Amino acid sequence: MAEDAVTTPPLDPPTTPRREVGVTELVLRDAHQSLMATRMALEDMVEACADIDAAGYWSVECWGGATFDACIRFLNEDPWARLRTFRELMPNSRLQMLLRGQNLLGYRHYQDEVVNRFVEKSAENGMDVYRVFDALNDVRNVRQAIEAVRRVGKHAQGTICYTESPLHTVEGYVEQAHQLMELGCDSLCIKDMAALLRPQPAYDIVKAIKDGVGQDVRIHVHCHATTGVTLVSLMKAIEAGADVVDTAISSLSMGPGHNPTESLVEMLAGTPYTTNLDDERLGRIKDHFAAVRPRYTEFMSAITGVETDIFSSQIPGGMISNMESQLRQQGAGDRLKEVLEEVPRVRQAAGYPPLVTPSSQIVGTQAVFNVLMGPYKVLTAEFADLMLGYYGATLGERNPKIVELAKAQTKKEPITVRPADLLEPEWDELVEKAAGLAGSDGSDEDVLTTAMFPGVAPTFFAERDAGPRNVGRDPAELAAEKLAQQAGGEAQAPVNYSVTLDGKAHQVAVQRV
Amino acid sequence: MAEDAVTTPPLDPPTTPRREVGVTELVLRDAHQSLMATRMALEDMVEACADIDAAGYWSVECWGGATFDACIRFLNEDPWARLRTFRELMPNSRLQMLLRGQNLLGYRHYQDEVVNRFVEKSAENGMDVYRVFDALNDVRNVRQAIEAVRRVGKHAQGTICYTESPLHTVEGYVEQAHQLMELGCDSLCIKDMAALLRPQPAYDIVKAIKDGVGQDVRIHVHCHATTGVTLVSLMKAIEAGADVVDTAISSLSMGPGHNPTESLVEMLAGTPYTTNLDDERLGRIKDHFAAVRPRYTEFMSAITGVETDIFSSQIPGGMISNMESQLRQQGAGDRLKEVLEEVPRVRQAAGYPPLVTPSSQIVGTQAVFNVLMGPYKVLTAEFADLMLGYYGATLGERNPKIVELAKAQTKKEPITVRPADLLEPEWDELVEKAAGLAGSDGSDEDVLTTAMFPGVAPTFFAERDAGPRNVGRDPAELAAEKLAQQAGGEAQAPVNYSVTLDGKAHQVAVQRV
Repeated sequence: MAEDAVTTPPLDPPTTPRREVGVTELVLRDAHQSLMATRMALEDMVEACADIDAAGYWSVECWGGATFDACIRFLNEDPWARLRTFRELMPNSRLQMLLRGQNLLGYRHYQDEVVNRFVEKSAENGMDVYRVFDALNDVRNVRQAIEAVRRVGKHAQGTICYTESPLHTVEGYVEQAHQLMELGCDSLCIKDMAALLRPQPAYDIVKAIKDGVGQDVRIHVHCHATTGVTLVSLMKAIEAGADVVDTAISSLSMGPGHNPTESLVEMLAGTPYTTNLDDERLGRIKDHFAAVRPRYTEFMSAITGVETDIFSSQIPGGMISNMESQLRQQGAGDRLKEVLEEVPRVRQAAGYPPLVTPSSQIVGTQAVFNVLMGPYKVLTAEFADLMLGYYGATLGERNPKIVELAKAQTKKEPITVRPADLLEPEWDELVEKAAGLAGSDGSDEDVLTTAMFPGVAPTFFAERDAGPRNVGRDPAELAAEKLAQQAGGEAQAPVNYSVTLDGKAHQVAVQRV
Repeated sequence: MAEDAVTTPPLDPPTTPRREVGVTELVLRDAHQSLMATRMALEDMVEACADIDAAGYWSVECWGGATFDACIRFLNEDPWARLRTFRELMPNSRLQMLLRGQNLLGYRHYQDEVVNRFVEKSAENGMDVYRVFDALNDVRNVRQAIEAVRRVGKHAQGTICYTESPLHTVEGYVEQAHQLMELGCDSLCIKDMAALLRPQPAYDIVKAIKDGVGQDVRIHVHCHATTGVTLVSLMKAIEAGADVVDTAISSLSMGPGHNPTESLVEMLAGTPYTTNLDDERLGRIKDHFAAVRPRYTEFMSAITGVETDIFSSQIPGGMISNMESQLRQQGAGDRLKEVLEEVPRVRQAAGYPPLVTPSSQIVGTQAVFNVLMGPYKVLTAEFADLMLGYYGATLGERNPKIVELAKAQTKKEPITVRPADLLEPEWDELVEKAAGLAGSDGSDEDVLTTAMFPGVAPTFFAERDAGPRNVGRDPAELAAEKLAQQAGGEAQAPVNYSVTLDGKAHQVAVQRV
């Protein structure tokens, strides 16, 4: 039929054998985390799950620290129940999560038994692929989690957090890849959380790992889109042999989010690579989230376009808005530029950690303190711990003068051991703690929720029975409400007039009722 | 100094000799045309010109059909004066324009003398580089303009409008490149107005032209960003030897616009290519347009993200919104999907023209007619002319049945000659016509304005003395006005108040009259 001819891509060589590049779809986790403050309710995802399950993705990322946190903090949704729902709705997919190594989904180091329990319970509830990272790239901090994943027979992915500094080299990343593979990882991920990975380094690192560690080492590449350049980096990574790349469906892509899945598909047309994804299903997934997106307008990231300043500050988009609000609270909203210039100096003093949760917050907050109060006049407790080794080892030497300040301020000694080695067994205590909370059901899942979010869990358990709270809002409804507030706001206080009626002056107070 | 070390890009091999890739900055023409309906006032550009002039661009695109049209239609600005201002403010830059071949900046074919006069006058007023295209890729339609540009000693760039169909092949594009170079072009442009040029075809076409026509043939690549994939295409084009690529400063980039200039710069870090652009000046240009952009919010394109559906419909973003409004006017706003599916069929019937001004409007409008009234029940005058050859030759055969319909409806015969060969000399008549318009100053520039925009020129000349009208609006002012309008609208219904008059409460209904 003639219509068929119209849509045939003529420039696509039909006969070349093509290598399949796997795709991890991010829309259920990192996409809405990056674009709409992790607020998407499970309810707004379920209808897309059948298409996601059958589109041909290598895996579906759907769980992590921020989604867990948002579930119990804002959505009154049990994150474990969310995971079980995904498992049921996507029986054919590898479900994937992001795990902060020894920090699990929280912000402190947990004792090894807690790590084991978390991995066992999440696997039981349906998790397949664990992307395990440490914010400092300290391999000791991911070892326990990776071993636990291997014990439950799931896919353990070791992670290299990509960053740049005078000390970070291709050789260094290859060395880290070696160490991770020695732990028994099933694959590696190069994680570019701030969209700093340019095309040539992407090529060089993937190529060097394949050449140096083994051609059969599976390499996944995760890039954000903020700097506008990382789809090119994915192309180069694929040319160098990358096996799987991460993207998000176009209607929830770009800005501080990720490159669009459909653009990846089109990018590979005519090349020796293909995703083999199902275009029709991608179209339906896109339409679904295009319809959902406007419901979360009030949570959308202020950054919508491309931002290349990140190459000098290295500060991820979400962190900038955090720092802005910290500064405004201190009446110093005009000093953001100074803070952005201070961040690289603080990072250097701390031995060049990558900037990713929690190191991004720790370095960023110290930079704010330095600008407001003078360099290192006050150290945050977390920054002091970072300087003393309580988060692990950094690639660079930490500034000895500031280490001394940290010692003096905290009365703690620097450490060089794996931080979790200093922890006492804590599982029984956590069980007891959870048991004391009203609404806790005594499950290991509830113990883990308590362990990771001790401040939020009590309220969540108490209110859990009320069921999920969808914070998405119909845009028309929201606009009408805003207008009503503005109009109403004008008329609430009585207004006093002097009115002359038939020649006589009266004092009149008018109030809208 | 330590601070310096922090910002040194460590992965950039310092010693390799690098090929300089030229950059054409689009912010003064195509960027605001694509993103804000060409509404930007000269006033909002002047402050950026010194930085643009010194940033190291290969050329600065700043003039074309839509900017000329918008100047006289909406901004009461003389486009010739705008050109002279650019010339003055950017003395070190190549100023570049987009010229619709024999159509100049209008929508019909002009007789050769008018083409010559236009080129002479624009060169006199400061133009350096002429990108000359024909919507059908009919080389006969660009010949006169290219020869005129050569005669005045300026840079003549022949253009290949990129499109896809079962008939369009790499070999075909190489053949067109040959023909254009035989006309004496100084360079070639591959113009991808709808963001359809994927990476592999970009590489293949550039490589094949260099191999087949000559390594010294200068190739420029112009891509829009709509489909999210074309920065990768620029990378591949550069790898294949492209000499210059087009980008727009990041604060006026992406969506239906273009890839960000700064992302291009970063993309090439560490590769054997470099732009040699001045980062600091780019930063200032970015900040300038970031501040200007919100003033044009009401004109901004509704498309902000990535849209890959274009690969099947081939319809540029701007055209979709046109068709939507045409459909709504006919009370058929719900039939857009049918129209989008009809466009490729109409294009096939017309012999697979590229879709770009004016062919995009002609094919799009006919598709709307077909859906609303039945296939080819009514032909627009322009579509009939297209079918009869009055716009030039197409690559594919035109559907003979519809050619017959066009003959019957118009009582015209099909032609195969260059359309302008049928035109009588018209310059003297145009001079006379312009002379009869109040406010026309008798200059050749005014004659050309009259020739190209006969419907708009009279009003413009009459009002020209009032000076430019900046349609950009302060966003806060605009919001306040909107609220006042809404509040005014609400106050028409009676509002109930409790009024306390001299201590006594009254129920009062007040209605604005």
